[in-house]
Amino acid sequence: MPSRQPVTPLQRIRLALLGRPIPTALAHHEKLGPLLGLPVFSSDALSSVAYATEAVLGVLILISEHALGLQMAISIAICVLIVVVAISYNQTIHAYPSGGGSYIVASDNLGETPGLIAAAALLIDYVLTVSVSVAAGVAAIVSAYPHLHDFLVPMSIGFIALVAWANLRGVRESGAVFAVPTYAFIFGMISLIVIGGVKAWGAHAVALPHVVALQDKVDMIGKEAALVHASNFAMWFLILRAFAAGCTALTGIEAVSNGVPAFKSPESTNASKTLGMMAALLTIMFIGTGLLVRYLPDLALFDASKTVVSQLASWAFGHGSIPFFYIQYSTAAILILAANTSFADFPRLTSLIARDGYLPRPLARQGDRLVFHNGILLLALFSCALVWYFKGQLDALLPMYAVGVFTAFTLSQLGMVVHWVRVKESGWKTKVAINGFGATLTLIVSVIILVTKFTEGAWLVAILMVILFTVFKAIKARYRAISAQLALSDTPPVMPAGNISLLLVPRVHRGILIALEYAQLTGLDCRAVHVGLNKKALPEVMHQWETFGGDVPLVVLKSPYRSLIQPVLDYIDKLQEEKPDHVVTVIVPEAIAHRWYHKVLQENVGHQLKHALGQRKNVVVTNVRYFLD
Amino acid sequence: MPSRQPVTPLQRIRLALLGRPIPTALAHHEKLGPLLGLPVFSSDALSSVAYATEAVLGVLILISEHALGLQMAISIAICVLIVVVAISYNQTIHAYPSGGGSYIVASDNLGETPGLIAAAALLIDYVLTVSVSVAAGVAAIVSAYPHLHDFLVPMSIGFIALVAWANLRGVRESGAVFAVPTYAFIFGMISLIVIGGVKAWGAHAVALPHVVALQDKVDMIGKEAALVHASNFAMWFLILRAFAAGCTALTGIEAVSNGVPAFKSPESTNASKTLGMMAALLTIMFIGTGLLVRYLPDLALFDASKTVVSQLASWAFGHGSIPFFYIQYSTAAILILAANTSFADFPRLTSLIARDGYLPRPLARQGDRLVFHNGILLLALFSCALVWYFKGQLDALLPMYAVGVFTAFTLSQLGMVVHWVRVKESGWKTKVAINGFGATLTLIVSVIILVTKFTEGAWLVAILMVILFTVFKAIKARYRAISAQLALSDTPPVMPAGNISLLLVPRVHRGILIALEYAQLTGLDCRAVHVGLNKKALPEVMHQWETFGGDVPLVVLKSPYRSLIQPVLDYIDKLQEEKPDHVVTVIVPEAIAHRWYHKVLQENVGHQLKHALGQRKNVVVTNVRYFLD
Repeated sequence: MPSRQPVTPLQRIRLALLGRPIPTALAHHEKLGPLLGLPVFSSDALSSVAYATEAVLGVLILISEHALGLQMAISIAICVLIVVVAISYNQTIHAYPSGGGSYIVASDNLGETPGLIAAAALLIDYVLTVSVSVAAGVAAIVSAYPHLHDFLVPMSIGFIALVAWANLRGVRESGAVFAVPTYAFIFGMISLIVIGGVKAWGAHAVALPHVVALQDKVDMIGKEAALVHASNFAMWFLILRAFAAGCTALTGIEAVSNGVPAFKSPESTNASKTLGMMAALLTIMFIGTGLLVRYLPDLALFDASKTVVSQLASWAFGHGSIPFFYIQYSTAAILILAANTSFADFPRLTSLIARDGYLPRPLARQGDRLVFHNGILLLALFSCALVWYFKGQLDALLPMYAVGVFTAFTLSQLGMVVHWVRVKESGWKTKVAINGFGATLTLIVSVIILVTKFTEGAWLVAILMVILFTVFKAIKARYRAISAQLALSDTPPVMPAGNISLLLVPRVHRGILIALEYAQLTGLDCRAVHVGLNKKALPEVMHQWETFGGDVPLVVLKSPYRSLIQPVLDYIDKLQEEKPDHVVTVIVPEAIAHRWYHKVLQENVGHQLKHALGQRKNVVVTNVRYFLD
Repeated sequence: MPSRQPVTPLQRIRLALLGRPIPTALAHHEKLGPLLGLPVFSSDALSSVAYATEAVLGVLILISEHALGLQMAISIAICVLIVVVAISYNQTIHAYPSGGGSYIVASDNLGETPGLIAAAALLIDYVLTVSVSVAAGVAAIVSAYPHLHDFLVPMSIGFIALVAWANLRGVRESGAVFAVPTYAFIFGMISLIVIGGVKAWGAHAVALPHVVALQDKVDMIGKEAALVHASNFAMWFLILRAFAAGCTALTGIEAVSNGVPAFKSPESTNASKTLGMMAALLTIMFIGTGLLVRYLPDLALFDASKTVVSQLASWAFGHGSIPFFYIQYSTAAILILAANTSFADFPRLTSLIARDGYLPRPLARQGDRLVFHNGILLLALFSCALVWYFKGQLDALLPMYAVGVFTAFTLSQLGMVVHWVRVKESGWKTKVAINGFGATLTLIVSVIILVTKFTEGAWLVAILMVILFTVFKAIKARYRAISAQLALSDTPPVMPAGNISLLLVPRVHRGILIALEYAQLTGLDCRAVHVGLNKKALPEVMHQWETFGGDVPLVVLKSPYRSLIQPVLDYIDKLQEEKPDHVVTVIVPEAIAHRWYHKVLQENVGHQLKHALGQRKNVVVTNVRYFLD
């Protein structure tokens, strides 16, 4: 296949960066069992253990140090939520063995509008997953190396770029690649919980840790605490906000149901097992870290260079010990993997939406290497923008997170309810009850999250969802209008009566002669057109045309405004007035330089002309290329 | 002229911003007498009074407070230089009545290399003139409103954008527009000198002011002072550096000789008078401010919110008085005008250089409104970059200034020496002596400036000059090579034996049918080509083509890599192998959207294809446009 050899420097760079194209025929996923399915689909969900407990504590401390005791109750509530959502999604797995993302389930069963709301919610949450995961991963690294604290933003953007690049090359979703960091993380966290538990057993009594909050947070905490003492409502509001903060643990839980076809036969059963394992592990690790925190002698909060997990590891294993670094590295690794999951999901979802006509069609096209380039680039762009804007700070990013996920959860469960009512298969009433319960619960949680986090950032997500929804609708309307305009009818477009070719001749040289021959070959009524920008050069052009122009007449156009394009447009208008049923073909000779930097030396007249043609009909622009070097 | 009505939103914006095109026939300058010629050509030179004295003092203080006494000696030396250079340029005015810029004089008389060195020096200095003038103008405003100090960079960039915009519209170099601020500035400065002089007369004795330097400069000054005490050489070096700093007063002095044709008849005489007036005023104001400074009780240096001129005005008129603000405003105004001068000169010079083939040809094209758009944009871009990089700080920009000007002075005077030797008109020996003396003096000053300011920024100018020179040469070589390749010869290019037209058909719709009719109209061997990206859609495309495709056969190309372009390229390669003497015309139907934001919804396949064609010969790309909305 010689024509696929890189020719231009750009193509060469592209090949080096992105690798050789992969034929569509090779598109397949290796089929996964539960043991490999777990790492592939659960990095997003499990990695939230790294920040969810900390997020809960960061809100509870606003009430008082004693309120930290509520953390266990909130953790348990969240674990109940995890179990309910997992059972709900388990039903989706069996109903949609070909993959049931929220967008598909919602639009299938509830219609266009809920489908698009789910889509908007999911797209925003994928961007946030990347930003939050990478920021948390960087926080884990910074906890090991505090002097890196000044490089939060460049490190985060570097990781996003790395993951985006890997995805542009087309990472095979190989179970092995995912298995190592995921199981390493699980092993690390379980060890931490067990060893920490043994150490806590030896401790005298259950005691809340002394909290060391950063000085600049103390004032704020004081104010909130004063408010809490003044009103019961404020206290409950903060408790619900703490719960909402913990709900970030549920993000990514729907991944298995999206990916059912990737499992070995029987797909649904294997997927179901994986989902169960994931929910169990998530519950264990979340409760476990929640219990351990109570035994920390000192707890530093809001300190970007000390995550809560790193403090636990420091306390259980000793600061700077090998297990301590192991926890930091494996946490960072699974968080980067979690970001990677979004890089697979976001472009797949945008391509589905684009195929349905709600996003620009180019997003639906797979690239050379079986990946959706445009979607990957968009996601990288948006998540970098978020990280940059929020200076890579996790606690600034977290409040926006989970709003979208729970919206999508609710719509998806509601869709399932409608699905069961429609299908009415055996036991449908139980299934309606389960998904209905799930939908109700997630709806309530959605409202709690939206309300309690509203001022902290959820408002932005709400606005973005409305904007995205409007854009979807506008794009669809536009595509509908285009289709209507381009619809085939029994009356074909009017056939033009003839063609007049105009050959642009800035000066007479070999390249022009090549174009002249082409013009003579294809057109009958052919005229050469010279725009007189330089009076001095005119006699020479006319003289040379007499010698080399053959029988093609030369038309010299005056340019009172020194414009190259306008006189040509005026001449076209004149021709079309004289012969309204003719097409005018403007032949633009274009020099093709061998090296890219030679291009700046040439004017792209063809491009300028096409741009300037505006709404003129029956004008065709033809580029005859001649070569330099 | 209906076709010049704006059609697209971009054209409408353009019209609103830049105004209607001006016909070449209206290109004329109003002819100027000395009284209007002075403001038009002297804003650059005269405005340097606003910063030159301060620049000298800023170096002398590095020696010691007593060394400030040397300021008068240096001012006098610079005034002598001004007179010598003015007399030298007076000869150029008479020898080049059609305008004798350094580039023209140097390349005419000394050859290509000196001409290009002068050109490089001038271009860099025009950029610096804009940056320095605007930064100094902003400093004048900030001296009146110190709380604006935080907005140095945005204010400077705003002014540059404003001046660039005015020049893109095509400011007529109207004497009246220039006269008001220039004479206002002259009046203000002379009043300041007179009233300040009277006040100083009443003062007890000539005393050097007490210097209040900013704390962060004190250490540096201490170190330099220690060095000075240790060596005589260091002291002389600093004195020469102070002299070099003052030489910025000479920038712009050559403007009159560039613009001789703008004067009323007798042009040379009027230009000569103007030059004389300018030199006299410059000398008076420079010496005057230099004298006054000695009577300031306290002198703040290196304080970006207090220029020396503003301190003089504050002392002479009272801080916050109306005359104080008058001085600040008129200083700012003449400095902005000085920047404006560069916006007229830089594009004119780049167009001259581009016409000679040393810069890309598009720089030589005048725009609709008789201005050189590209040159104006380039200058705005570069000067904004400088201001942004040096944070709008005048004392960081000044050391780079004047290096280029004196190089150009020297080459121009040397060129004049050669000119007189060649022409040998009456009294040529005296003329050689004058220009020779001027050349020698400016050469010495050039060396002093380059050496003493080298580490402070002159090195950058030197490097940029070398780079620019190399670029000039490379571009010229490239154009020469292109000319050689495109030279007409007696053997015309081989006429192709025939043409095969390929019509790209992504799906069958009304737009495609328009293109089909065009293809049938112009080509004999015409084939429709469909790239099979979506297997499901293929039968429909084939069916519809049977109905609507007439007798044009449909070729379906497989796309194993999901690429739209590659299969077309492969097919073209196949065709060209079969019929090497044929041209292949690829007809790309292109949807033209009415609104710009609709464009993102369409793929520009024609553009992608043209880019991908690479070095394939005998392939022509034809765009048949169809319209939406």
